[in-house]
Amino acid sequence: GFAKVDHHRPIRTGMPEVIYCEGKTTEQVAKIFNSLAASGVNVLATRANAEHRQAIFAAEPRSVEHVAARCVTLKQNDLAPRPGRIGIVCAGTSDLPVAEEARVTAELMGNQVDLVADVGVAGLHRLLSQHHRLQEASVLIVCAGMEGALPSVVGGLVGVPVIAVPTSVGYGASFGGLAALLGMLNSCSPNIAVVNIDNGFGAAYVATLMNRAY
Amino acid sequence: GFAKVDHHRPIRTGMPEVIYCEGKTTEQVAKIFNSLAASGVNVLATRANAEHRQAIFAAEPRSVEHVAARCVTLKQNDLAPRPGRIGIVCAGTSDLPVAEEARVTAELMGNQVDLVADVGVAGLHRLLSQHHRLQEASVLIVCAGMEGALPSVVGGLVGVPVIAVPTSVGYGASFGGLAALLGMLNSCSPNIAVVNIDNGFGAAYVATLMNRAY
Amino acid sequence: GFAKVDHHRPIRTGMPEVIYCEGKTTEQVAKIFNSLAASGVNVLATRANAEHRQAIFAAEPRSVEHVAARCVTLKQNDLAPRPGRIGIVCAGTSDLPVAEEARVTAELMGNQVDLVADVGVAGLHRLLSQHHRLQEASVLIVCAGMEGALPSVVGGLVGVPVIAVPTSVGYGASFGGLAALLGMLNSCSPNIAVVNIDNGFGAAYVATLMNRAY
Amino acid sequence: GFAKVDHHRPIRTGMPEVIYCEGKTTEQVAKIFNSLAASGVNVLATRANAEHRQAIFAAEPRSVEHVAARCVTLKQNDLAPRPGRIGIVCAGTSDLPVAEEARVTAELMGNQVDLVADVGVAGLHRLLSQHHRLQEASVLIVCAGMEGALPSVVGGLVGVPVIAVPTSVGYGASFGGLAALLGMLNSCSPNIAVVNIDNGFGAAYVATLMNRAY
Amino acid sequence: GFAKVDHHRPIRTGMPEVIYCEGKTTEQVAKIFNSLAASGVNVLATRANAEHRQAIFAAEPRSVEHVAARCVTLKQNDLAPRPGRIGIVCAGTSDLPVAEEARVTAELMGNQVDLVADVGVAGLHRLLSQHHRLQEASVLIVCAGMEGALPSVVGGLVGVPVIAVPTSVGYGASFGGLAALLGMLNSCSPNIAVVNIDNGFGAAYVATLMNRAY
Amino acid sequence: GFAKVDHHRPIRTGMPEVIYCEGKTTEQVAKIFNSLAASGVNVLATRANAEHRQAIFAAEPRSVEHVAARCVTLKQNDLAPRPGRIGIVCAGTSDLPVAEEARVTAELMGNQVDLVADVGVAGLHRLLSQHHRLQEASVLIVCAGMEGALPSVVGGLVGVPVIAVPTSVGYGASFGGLAALLGMLNSCSPNIAVVNIDNGFGAAYVATLMNRAY
Amino acid sequence: GFAKVDHHRPIRTGMPEVIYCEGKTTEQVAKIFNSLAASGVNVLATRANAEHRQAIFAAEPRSVEHVAARCVTLKQNDLAPRPGRIGIVCAGTSDLPVAEEARVTAELMGNQVDLVADVGVAGLHRLLSQHHRLQEASVLIVCAGMEGALPSVVGGLVGVPVIAVPTSVGYGASFGGLAALLGMLNSCSPNIAVVNIDNGFGAAYVATLMNRAY
Amino acid sequence: GFAKVDHHRPIRTGMPEVIYCEGKTTEQVAKIFNSLAASGVNVLATRANAEHRQAIFAAEPRSVEHVAARCVTLKQNDLAPRPGRIGIVCAGTSDLPVAEEARVTAELMGNQVDLVADVGVAGLHRLLSQHHRLQEASVLIVCAGMEGALPSVVGGLVGVPVIAVPTSVGYGASFGGLAALLGMLNSCSPNIAVVNIDNGFGAAYVATLMNRAY
Ligand SMILES: Nc1ncnc2c1ncn2[C@@H]1O[C@H](COP(=O)(O)O)[C@@H](O)[C@H]1O
Ligand SMILES: Nc1ncnc2c1ncn2[C@@H]1O[C@H](COP(=O)(O)O)[C@@H](O)[C@H]1O
Ligand SMILES: Nc1ncnc2c1ncn2[C@@H]1O[C@H](COP(=O)(O)O)[C@@H](O)[C@H]1O
Ligand SMILES: Nc1ncnc2c1ncn2[C@@H]1O[C@H](COP(=O)(O)O)[C@@H](O)[C@H]1O
Ligand SMILES: [Mg+2]
Ligand SMILES: [Mg+2]
Ligand SMILES: [Mg+2]
Ligand SMILES: [Mg+2]
Ligand SMILES: [Mg+2]
Ligand SMILES: [Mg+2]
Ligand SMILES: [Mg+2]
Ligand SMILES: [Mg+2]
Repeated sequence: GFAKVDHHRPIRTGMPEVIYCEGKTTEQVAKIFNSLAASGVNVLATRANAEHRQAIFAAEPRSVEHVAARCVTLKQNDLAPRPGRIGIVCAGTSDLPVAEEARVTAELMGNQVDLVADVGVAGLHRLLSQHHRLQEASVLIVCAGMEGALPSVVGGLVGVPVIAVPTSVGYGASFGGLAALLGMLNSCSPNIAVVNIDNGFGAAYVATLMNRAY
Repeated sequence: GFAKVDHHRPIRTGMPEVIYCEGKTTEQVAKIFNSLAASGVNVLATRANAEHRQAIFAAEPRSVEHVAARCVTLKQNDLAPRPGRIGIVCAGTSDLPVAEEARVTAELMGNQVDLVADVGVAGLHRLLSQHHRLQEASVLIVCAGMEGALPSVVGGLVGVPVIAVPTSVGYGASFGGLAALLGMLNSCSPNIAVVNIDNGFGAAYVATLMNRAY
Repeated sequence: GFAKVDHHRPIRTGMPEVIYCEGKTTEQVAKIFNSLAASGVNVLATRANAEHRQAIFAAEPRSVEHVAARCVTLKQNDLAPRPGRIGIVCAGTSDLPVAEEARVTAELMGNQVDLVADVGVAGLHRLLSQHHRLQEASVLIVCAGMEGALPSVVGGLVGVPVIAVPTSVGYGASFGGLAALLGMLNSCSPNIAVVNIDNGFGAAYVATLMNRAY
Repeated sequence: GFAKVDHHRPIRTGMPEVIYCEGKTTEQVAKIFNSLAASGVNVLATRANAEHRQAIFAAEPRSVEHVAARCVTLKQNDLAPRPGRIGIVCAGTSDLPVAEEARVTAELMGNQVDLVADVGVAGLHRLLSQHHRLQEASVLIVCAGMEGALPSVVGGLVGVPVIAVPTSVGYGASFGGLAALLGMLNSCSPNIAVVNIDNGFGAAYVATLMNRAY
Repeated sequence: GFAKVDHHRPIRTGMPEVIYCEGKTTEQVAKIFNSLAASGVNVLATRANAEHRQAIFAAEPRSVEHVAARCVTLKQNDLAPRPGRIGIVCAGTSDLPVAEEARVTAELMGNQVDLVADVGVAGLHRLLSQHHRLQEASVLIVCAGMEGALPSVVGGLVGVPVIAVPTSVGYGASFGGLAALLGMLNSCSPNIAVVNIDNGFGAAYVATLMNRAY
Repeated sequence: GFAKVDHHRPIRTGMPEVIYCEGKTTEQVAKIFNSLAASGVNVLATRANAEHRQAIFAAEPRSVEHVAARCVTLKQNDLAPRPGRIGIVCAGTSDLPVAEEARVTAELMGNQVDLVADVGVAGLHRLLSQHHRLQEASVLIVCAGMEGALPSVVGGLVGVPVIAVPTSVGYGASFGGLAALLGMLNSCSPNIAVVNIDNGFGAAYVATLMNRAY
Repeated sequence: GFAKVDHHRPIRTGMPEVIYCEGKTTEQVAKIFNSLAASGVNVLATRANAEHRQAIFAAEPRSVEHVAARCVTLKQNDLAPRPGRIGIVCAGTSDLPVAEEARVTAELMGNQVDLVADVGVAGLHRLLSQHHRLQEASVLIVCAGMEGALPSVVGGLVGVPVIAVPTSVGYGASFGGLAALLGMLNSCSPNIAVVNIDNGFGAAYVATLMNRAY
Repeated sequence: GFAKVDHHRPIRTGMPEVIYCEGKTTEQVAKIFNSLAASGVNVLATRANAEHRQAIFAAEPRSVEHVAARCVTLKQNDLAPRPGRIGIVCAGTSDLPVAEEARVTAELMGNQVDLVADVGVAGLHRLLSQHHRLQEASVLIVCAGMEGALPSVVGGLVGVPVIAVPTSVGYGASFGGLAALLGMLNSCSPNIAVVNIDNGFGAAYVATLMNRAY
C-alpha cells in the first residue's frame, strides 16, 4: 500500500509514529490514523488542515481537534508522569501557532507544560518578570520569528537545555524564517540546539526525551 | 578593558564561560585564560590555533593542549560524576576534529564519553555492528559532513535525544557544510536537534545539560 | 507555429519527444499531443493539470489519465521487453506523486517496475525488510524529500546505479526541495546520480536507458 | 587620472571624502591622501593594510596610524563641538576592530565617544550594569557578529536611534556576517537601522549626522 | 493571555508599542488595539488587511483607516512639535504603499512630512528639480525597489542622514526586494542606514528619533 | 501627484517612458497612459493584467491589447524605418509570452522582427535548420528557461550581439529563472549580454538601440 | 581507530572503498591505503594533494601517481573486460583535471575510455566533428564549467545516458560551479543525471555500473 | 590534445578565439597563444597572472603585457576603423582593473575608446561634468562595484546602449559582486544589458559588435 506505518517504533524509540499530514490526501491521513489508533497507542497528526481534521474526525470520532496548533490527537493511554516541566516561551503573539503545536505534542507525550507568551526581547522587562517560571523548567522550548534573538537571551539566564524553534513570522529579509534560523544556529549562548523553522512538534519531541529520570 | 569575563556565569548557568579564540589576539586570549584560571574554575579555550595555544601555555603552564580538537583545557576541579554516558558518533575520518572538540568539552564537563568513528551510512553494517554502544548512551552527538544523513539513521535506532553537528567536510555543493546543515534540520527522525556547522563544543555543552539526575 | 515538435528525436535518441505541460495553454498541449499521436509513437504528457488532461482527452479519446502522477499517456506500440527491472523506492507517503510520475514513464517506455513505498530512514527495518526487492532491480530510482537521506542508504546496500530524485516534500529549511537536492549531490555513496527536484520523469527516462542489453 | 577626488563634497554634505583603501594600490592611496591633505580638510583612510599605512606615512608624516581600526587619520582642523555623545557598544572582544573603526571615525568627525566592550546577550547582567552609559548617549552604535541579537536588546532599553553594525565574527552558518545582518534587519525593536557588515566607518558617519543641534 | 502589551514602553523609549497585524487573528488585533487605546496613548496598527481594519474599527470607532498604507491610527494626544521636517522620497509609483506607511507613522509621531513621489534615477532631472525640497529636510527616508539606487544618489546630494527602505517592487532577479536591499547596504554614499524590505514604519520611527532638539 | 511622467525622456534618450503596470492600481495606470497619449508619443504598457488592460481600453479606446504578451500599445506615429532586423529566438513553447513581449516592444519601436519559436538545444537540428534566419538578423534576442543554454549555442553561430533573456519557465532547481540567468551570465560565447528574468521588454529596448544607422 | 575501512563493500556493491583524501592527515591516508592494498583489491585515492601522494608512495611504492587528476592508484587485479566504452567529453581546457579524475577512475575499474577535450558549445563544429566518437560510447560523462550547457547539447545528440559533471571553472556569477550545476539539473534533454561539482570520480563510478552485460 | 583551438571562429563570428587563462597551466596558455599567433590573427589572453604573462612572453616575444588589465595582446593586423566610439565609465578607482580589461579588449578589436574614471553616484557632479563625453559615445560600458548604481544613472542620461559590468569591489553584503550584479539586472533604465561580474572582456566584445556600420 501507500504507507508502511512504523508500528515497531514504540519498541525501538519508546514513542509511536506521528502523522505528518502535508502532501497526503485526506483518505491517506484517515487510514493511517485509524491504523495507529487500532494498535492502541496515543495518536498525533500534525500540520493537519481543516479537511484533514474533518476526515480524521469522521474516521475516528474520539479524536480531538486543536485548531490553533493545526493538530489532531487521540489519547488512549495515561503515560507515567515525567519528572520535570517543559517551559515553552514565545516571542510574539504571531508565534503562538508554533508554540501551541509544541504544547499539544508535549502534553500528549506526558509532560507538564508551562507556556509563556509574548515576551520578545524588545521589552526585556516582560521576560525578566517571568524569570521564576523559566527557572522552574527542566528544559525550555523558545519560539521566535523575525531576528530570533529570544533563545540567546533566555539561554543566558538558565542552566537547562534550550530547544530553539525559528518561526516563519516576519517579512522581507526574514526570508520565511531563515533569518531567525541562522540567528539561533549562531547563538553565543552555548546551551541551545535548533530544530526546523515552525517545527513545534520536533522541539516538543526532543524536549520530552530530555524530561526523564535516570 | 577589551573583555568583561562573565565570572557570574557559573552561578547563573552552572558552567564557567568558555573562550572562543578566533578573531582574538594571542594577548587577549592569554589574559582571559588567566583571569578565568584565577577564579578557580575549569577553563576551556576552543578554536585555538597554534599561536593561541602557545600563548596560553606560556601564560598558564598547567594548561593542556588538544591538537586535533584545537582546544586548550585547564582542569582544576573534579566535578561530581554525571549519571549517563554521552555517545559521540562520526560519519567519516575527516569529521574527527569536530568530534574531538565535542569529546574534550564533554570530558572536561564531567561526562563519560564513548566515541564511535567512521560509521557513515554508505556502509551501514559498520554502524549496525556498533548498535550496542549507541544503546548505552543517554544522549548522542552525531557529526557528519557531506549529505549529513547519519543523524537521521541513528535517530531512528535509539530512544534518546540526538544532537546533530553538521561539519564542513565536503566540496562543491556541500557549500561549507550547508548541505549537511539543511539535511539535519529537515530530518524525518523526530528526536534530533541541530547546532552550528563544526560546533562540536556546543553539541557537547547541550548534551552535558541533558546528562543529569533529577 | 508555436511549436516545432521534434519528430526526428526517436531516430536520434531512440525515444519520442515528451510534452511538458506547465506554461502551455490547453490548446497548445492538445495540438502537440495530436501531432505526436499522428506520428504513431507512444505519447506522454507530464505535469498536466486537470484542464490540460481534459483537453488532451477531448482531442484524443484513446489517451489515459494518471491523476496521482499528473500524466496522460497514449500507448500505440508494444516495445520489445527490456532485460532488467527498475526499482522505484520512496521515503514517505507524501513522495508518492513523484514516484508515480516515474512509474508511469518507465512502464510506457517498456520497463518492468517494482515500486516500494514509505521506507524512510527513520524506520530502517522497513527498508531492510525489502532488501530482496532492492537486490532484484537492475537500476534503482529513489525519491525522498526533507533531508533526502534515503539514496545514500540504499546506495550503500546495492551494486547498481541509483538515480536520486529530491522531492519538494517538507517545509521551512527544506526550501522547496533544496535541502534534499544538496544532500543527494553530496552523497557519500558513490553510485548515485541526481535529477531535478520532483523530476520523476527524468529519473525514469535515464533509468530506462540503463536498462538495456548490449 | 585614476581618481577624481570629490573636493566639492564638504560643501555639499558637510564632510570631506574618505579614502577606502581596499583594491587600491599604495601609490593611488598615498596620492589621494596627499591631495585631500593639501585641500586643508581632516583626512581619513579606512581598510588600510600595513602597506597602505606605510605608504601614507611616507607621503604624509603627520598622519596617525590606528592599527586595530586599520585606519590612518590626519587632523588639521578642530571641529565645533557636537552637542551629544555617541555610544559604541560591542558584543564580544572579537568585534573590537569594527568598533574601533567606528570610534576613530566618530572622534575625527568631532564627536565625544563612549565605547562599551564585551557585553553580549549571553550574559545580560554585563549589559544591564552599563545601562547608565547607554542612557547618556544621544545615538548608539551597536556592533555584533554571530546571531547579532545585541541591537534588539539595546534598542528595547533606550529611546535614541541605534545604528546596528553586523560583523563577520563567527563561523559556519554565520556565512561571513549574513546571519547577523539578517537578524538586525528583522529586529523587533523599531529604533534600529543597519549598515553593511563590518562597516564601522559608515555607522559612525551616520551617527555623526544625527549628533547635531537644530 | 496571548499578549503582554508593553505598556511600559513609552517610559522606557518615549514611544508606545505598535501593533504588527500579520499572523494575528482579528480578535487578537482588536483586543490589543483596545488595550493600548485605553491606556491613553496614540495607537498605530500596521500591515493590517481589510479584515483587521474592520475589526479594529468595530472595536474602536474613533480609529482612522489608511488604505494605501494598510494602517489604522488613533490619535488621542497632540505631541509637542518636533524641530525639523522628514522628507520622504520614493522612486516609482509602485513604491507608494511603503512611502505611505512611513508618512502615516511619521505624522502620528508628531513630525511634519514632505513626500516626493516618482523621482527614480532613470530620469534624474525629476529628482534634481526637487532638490530644494530635499535640502529642507532634516532627515530623509528614501524608498526604492528594483535596483534600489535612489538612496545613493540622494545621499550624495545632502548632508543629513538618509534612511533607505528597499521595497519588494520588481520581478525576476529582484528576489522580493533582495536586490534593492543589497544595493542599499553597499551604498558608496556614507550617510545611509537601511531598514528591512518594505519597512516604511521602521524608517519613520528611526527618522522621528533623529528629529529632535537637544 | 502619485506619478511624475518623464515627458522629457524622448529628448534625452530618444524613446518615450514606458508604463510598468505591476504594483500600480488600474486608476494609476489609466491616468499615466492618458497623460503619455496626450503628449503625442507612441505608448506602451507592460505586465498589464486583465484589469489593467480593461482600464486602459476604457480610458483610451484606440489602445490595442496583446494578450499573450500582457501588453497594451497605442501607435500614434510612424517611426523612420530602422536599417536591420531583430531576430527573436525562443527555446520552448512555454517561453513564448516573454518572446511576445519582446516582439510587441520591438515592433512598436519601429523594428522589423523575425520570431523563431521552439528551437531548444535538446533538438539541435531544429535550430540549425533555421540558421539562415539567424544570419539575417542584425541583433538577436534569445529567450530560454530551464538551463538557459540556447544563447551560448546561438552566440557561437553568429557574429552579431545576442541579448539573452532568462525566463522563469521550469521548476525545482530552476528557482524561478535563476538557473537560466546564471547560465547566461557565465556563457562561454563572448557576444552575449543579459537582461532580467522574463524581461522581454528590456531586451527589445536594448536591441532597438543597436539597430541604427551611424 | 580513526577509520573503519569498509572491507565488506566489494561483496555488497562489487567495488572496493575509495579514499577521499581531503581533510585527512597524510598518516591517515597512508594507513588506509595500506589496509586496502593488503586486502588485495585495486586501490584508488582521490583529491590527494602533493603531500598525500608522497605519503602514499612512501607507504606503498607500487602506487602510481596521476598529477593532473590528483589521484593515486594501485592496480593489483585485472578486471573482466566490460562490454561498452565510456566517452568522456569536456567543454574547455580548464575542465581537464575533472575529466582526468573520471578517466583514471574509469580505467582502474576496467572500462575502455575515450576522452574528447575542448569541445565547448561556443564552437559547435568542434563537437559535431566528434559526433562519431559520441555515438560509439555506451555511456557519456560530460564535464563543463561556466554555464554548463554542454550536457544538454550532447544529450540531444545521443541515445545513451549522460552523466553531467559541473566544474568549478569560471568566476563571478559562476559561484564556484553553482551556475553549471543548476544548468545541468534543469536540462531540457531528458537523458541526463548529475553529480556533485568537480566530482569526476563519482561520474566514472556511476558510468561503470552502467557499463555491464545483463 | 588538450585544446581544440577554434580557428574557424573568425569566419563564423568575425572575431578570433580569446584565451581565458585561469585554470590553465602556463604551458597550455603559451601553446594556445602560439597556435593562434601562427594563424595570423590578433591574439588576446585575459585573466593572465604574472606566470602566465611571462610564459607567453617567452613563447612569443612580440606579445605586449597589460599589467593592470591582467592581459597579454599581440597585434598583427590593423583592423578597418569602426564608425563610433566606445565610452568606458567606472565608478571608483578600485574598479579600474576591470575597466582596463575592457579598454585593452576594445582597442585591440579596432575601436576608439574614451575612459572616464572615478565618477561614482555619491558625487554626481563628477559624472554630470563629463556629460559631453558620455554623449559622444555610440555605446557605453559602465563598471561599478558595491551597489552598482552607476549604469542606471548613466542609462537615464543617454540614448545609446549601456553594457553594465558589475565588479567584485566591495565587502560584506556585496557578496563578491552579487549586490552590484542584481542591481544592474533590475535597473529601471531600459537601455541596459549586463555581463558577468568583473567581465570587462565580454563587455568590450559585445560593445565592439554594436560599433559597426550597416
Ligand atoms: N510537524 C512535523 N514536522 C516534522 N516532522 C514530523 C511532523 N509530524 C510528523 N513528523 C515526522 O514525520 C514522520 C512521518 O512521515 P511520513 O511517513 O511521511 O508520514 C513521523 O514519524 C514523524 O517523525
Ligand atoms: N516533467 C518533466 N521534467 C523535465 N523535463 C521534461 C518533463 N516533461 C518533458 N520534459 C522535457 O521537455 C521537453 C519538451 O519541452 P517543450 O518544447 O517546452 O515542450 C521534452 O522533450 C522533454 O525532454
Ligand atoms: N570602510 C568603508 N566602508 C564603506 N565605504 C567607505 C569606507 N571608507 C570609505 N568609504 C566610502 O567610499 C568612498 C570612496 O570611494 P572611492 O572613490 O572608491 O575611493 C568615500 O567617499 C566613502 O564614502
Ligand atoms: N575574461 C574572460 N571572461 C569570460 N570569457 C572569456 C574571457 N576570456 C576569454 N573568454 C572566453 O572563453 C573562451 C575560451 O575558453 P577556453 O576554451 O576554456 O580557453 C574564449 O573563446 C572566450 O569566448
Ligand atoms: Mg507583542
Ligand atoms: Mg570512511
Ligand atoms: Mg511514513
Ligand atoms: Mg566575551
Ligand atoms: Mg515612474
Ligand atoms: Mg518543444
Ligand atoms: Mg577552448
Ligand atoms: Mg573615488
